[in-house]
Amino acid sequence: MVPTVAIQGELGSFSHVAALKALGDETRVLQCRTFREAFEAVTRGDAPYGVVPIENSLVGSIYENYDLLADYRLPIVGETEVRVSLSLLARPGTRLQAVRRVHSHPVALNQCRRFLASLTDVEPVASYDTAGSVWEVMERGSVRDAAIGSPFAAKLYGASVLAEGIEDDPQNFTRFLVVAQGPVTPRGAHKTSLMLTLRHEPGSLWRALEPLAKRGLNLTKIESRPIRGRPWEYVFYLDVCGSEDASKAVSELGEVAAEVRVLGCYAVRSET
Amino acid sequence: MVPTVAIQGELGSFSHVAALKALGDETRVLQCRTFREAFEAVTRGDAPYGVVPIENSLVGSIYENYDLLADYRLPIVGETEVRVSLSLLARPGTRLQAVRRVHSHPVALNQCRRFLASLTDVEPVASYDTAGSVWEVMERGSVRDAAIGSPFAAKLYGASVLAEGIEDDPQNFTRFLVVAQGPVTPRGAHKTSLMLTLRHEPGSLWRALEPLAKRGLNLTKIESRPIRGRPWEYVFYLDVCGSEDASKAVSELGEVAAEVRVLGCYAVRSET
Repeated sequence: MVPTVAIQGELGSFSHVAALKALGDETRVLQCRTFREAFEAVTRGDAPYGVVPIENSLVGSIYENYDLLADYRLPIVGETEVRVSLSLLARPGTRLQAVRRVHSHPVALNQCRRFLASLTDVEPVASYDTAGSVWEVMERGSVRDAAIGSPFAAKLYGASVLAEGIEDDPQNFTRFLVVAQGPVTPRGAHKTSLMLTLRHEPGSLWRALEPLAKRGLNLTKIESRPIRGRPWEYVFYLDVCGSEDASKAVSELGEVAAEVRVLGCYAVRSET
Repeated sequence: MVPTVAIQGELGSFSHVAALKALGDETRVLQCRTFREAFEAVTRGDAPYGVVPIENSLVGSIYENYDLLADYRLPIVGETEVRVSLSLLARPGTRLQAVRRVHSHPVALNQCRRFLASLTDVEPVASYDTAGSVWEVMERGSVRDAAIGSPFAAKLYGASVLAEGIEDDPQNFTRFLVVAQGPVTPRGAHKTSLMLTLRHEPGSLWRALEPLAKRGLNLTKIESRPIRGRPWEYVFYLDVCGSEDASKAVSELGEVAAEVRVLGCYAVRSET
């Protein structure tokens, strides 16, 4: 059976690439306008899975999705990593020298600053979505328009590639999480994601990390997020490697933290 | 003498509001296109101070400025907090019912989703800058255009206020840092900002927090940022309250961390 995956954004986006990578090339995507709608779609059962970006190696965490993990109780059942390589795309026949406007999401424009600075008389134009900007240029662009998007978007929309690998920093990876409607027992799971609320007192984070540290569990990521309505208070998200001992550590953690929640226990796929 | 402060963005931006609040109403601003240019301007001596946002209570940290604190060695000499209240602004004579396009930075558009959804037949249009979108609408807008911006921008550009307090969540604050060319000895300093690089081994964060915890120093903020070129490795930024003991804790910290750097020791102004 072909799995369906809810993603945010257009066909040809990096979320689309991640969905295929995590669940197979035959995977069908259910396009959602926002990350929240993707979580909604999985909650309602419109799609058994959702794939959302959680962290980029240059830009950092995608906060909104940390917040949605807290709001929706969808377990994390997997993760995958995608290398972000950006291309300058346009309608066939467009010449690089003629391009005067480059459309893309501000983040993508920002990641190609050196390349854009090397062009003459070019105006960056902010749009809502990277792959969407490619679609726009293909549908409505003139010979003066180009968009920044993925090589996959180029293939999907039949765009010409005017330049490849135009991102400033090639060490550009995005980590995506796979969420599901119900928990899946993963084979070979060795990563546990936790959400922690701490008491508002000195030393609380240090005490919370102790059960992990004394078992030699590797904390691969810690993220703090503001708590709405309580300015400058935070909830913490932890990724811990080594699932065997993690469950014992978690119950110990429950004694020192105000609240602890396991977001998922899953296998890591880090081939890039 | 009237101080000059380098800020990113247009006149009427929240950075402009923060600069006046931190250094007085007479403060002159030096407008910079990017946050990096603001750091550059202070480094070169074009302005003795820079004021940059570091954290928003809803959106979270402004990562780029954490990275710039690392790149430039400008000490933090103060902080200030601004309540983010957003208004719908337009050219005088514009009626709310006639508005069809609302311009602003994607973050501001996103923070006013409920309000925008309450309007009929309105398209959000992404622009580079919040205050810049107000300026644009005042200069070139039609009776169908409005922009989301601060009340201060309205005053500065002579815009009509079509609606006030349109942000979804009123608990919306941004914390700004004041950086300077050289360190200033602050009176009543009690906050220390640190940058930590840890050894890549289990328990390293826990060991680093111990010198702070055992002195009862309050860790008010911890942020992790990716290290460029080393995907999924991080540098940590810590804000510690209580400057007396902090210096001893910092030297102890230096023994367990791979690297520790004091970014600043300063007084907090948290009246909002």
